[in-house]
Amino acid sequence: MTTAEFRLSTQKRTQFVSITANVGNIINKNNWRDGVVTVFVPHTTAGVTINENADPDVAHDMETFSDQLVPQSSRFRHGEGNSDSHIKASFFGSSVQVVIRKGKMWLGTWQGIYFCEFDGPRERTVYVALV
Amino acid sequence: MTTAEFRLSTQKRTQFVSITANVGNIINKNNWRDGVVTVFVPHTTAGVTINENADPDVAHDMETFSDQLVPQSSRFRHGEGNSDSHIKASFFGSSVQVVIRKGKMWLGTWQGIYFCEFDGPRERTVYVALV
Amino acid sequence: MTTAEFRLSTQKRTQFVSITANVGNIINKNNWRDGVVTVFVPHTTAGVTINENADPDVAHDMETFSDQLVPQSSRFRHGEGNSDSHIKASFFGSSVQVVIRKGKMWLGTWQGIYFCEFDGPRERTVYVALV
Repeated sequence: MTTAEFRLSTQKRTQFVSITANVGNIINKNNWRDGVVTVFVPHTTAGVTINENADPDVAHDMETFSDQLVPQSSRFRHGEGNSDSHIKASFFGSSVQVVIRKGKMWLGTWQGIYFCEFDGPRERTVYVALV
Repeated sequence: MTTAEFRLSTQKRTQFVSITANVGNIINKNNWRDGVVTVFVPHTTAGVTINENADPDVAHDMETFSDQLVPQSSRFRHGEGNSDSHIKASFFGSSVQVVIRKGKMWLGTWQGIYFCEFDGPRERTVYVALV
Repeated sequence: MTTAEFRLSTQKRTQFVSITANVGNIINKNNWRDGVVTVFVPHTTAGVTINENADPDVAHDMETFSDQLVPQSSRFRHGEGNSDSHIKASFFGSSVQVVIRKGKMWLGTWQGIYFCEFDGPRERTVYVALV
């Protein structure tokens, strides 16, 4: 097993940021040929998901719909005003697994990995483990 | 690590299809005794989940509720008219992991693996990795 | 690979129970240094998620919102009256993966692992695999 991490900055409260290249670079740098990569978000108001990498409108629609489904204005008990962010984080999940074959992520043609910011803008970290 | 894939056809726009047997067959064929199986959907308008394998009404209720929660008619920007499918795919997720013990998936009595079609009918592929 | 399991009791129909310590104890007892732990829920009306471990109001808000989003009273076909529980289970997911480094789970400061009961009160089991 090898582990690595990288940082990213988000600009909006809810923002899907493609991190496919960041993860691919870590695989390349470590010359990893076959295995599984786990991409893990060590935050409780952000998640990670795999979705369409081609049309940026898909990410936009996911951002908008998430905010409609879990509005910030809902009546919550947690005092920091970001319970909606915590809930969205758990809906999308804190990690994704992708198989690595011959040094490349075994993804579908249209798939990319997205960091899902739900309480930005912030400085964030992503953990990566190659097994 | 060993990898395999199989294909399936869906008949409806939203449809949960049991793939427990397909995954079990790959484990058997490869004589895999102990480890973890990753079932990965390489599509961005379909997902995979683990749920009740006994009463088909559960799958039916999940299909119906998903379509109510994320209606196709919502106001989306993505031009293909299937933003709802992309969102549902990310809510359910693109992979599941199941532990293999003594050649069998370590599932609960009532658990089965479902391919979650959200933009059918289509020909689909599922990736499987045994680690 | 090593596997283990533990049991827990829930007191409410919808209840998030912290199981971070239970998982940590299994890692310690097995003296596992590096790898990945898979926490798997073998039930179809319960899930598992990673979220805030500090303020219990976050778990409370997640419980409340889940029940609002998927009400038990929705018109479902499944006769046991717990289709909402099955749906919530799939939204949160049946497993989480956490990297283990130097004998400790590689979690963010505020992260904990929660068992998500959606059809309690019940006696439940959690599967753990160290790879």
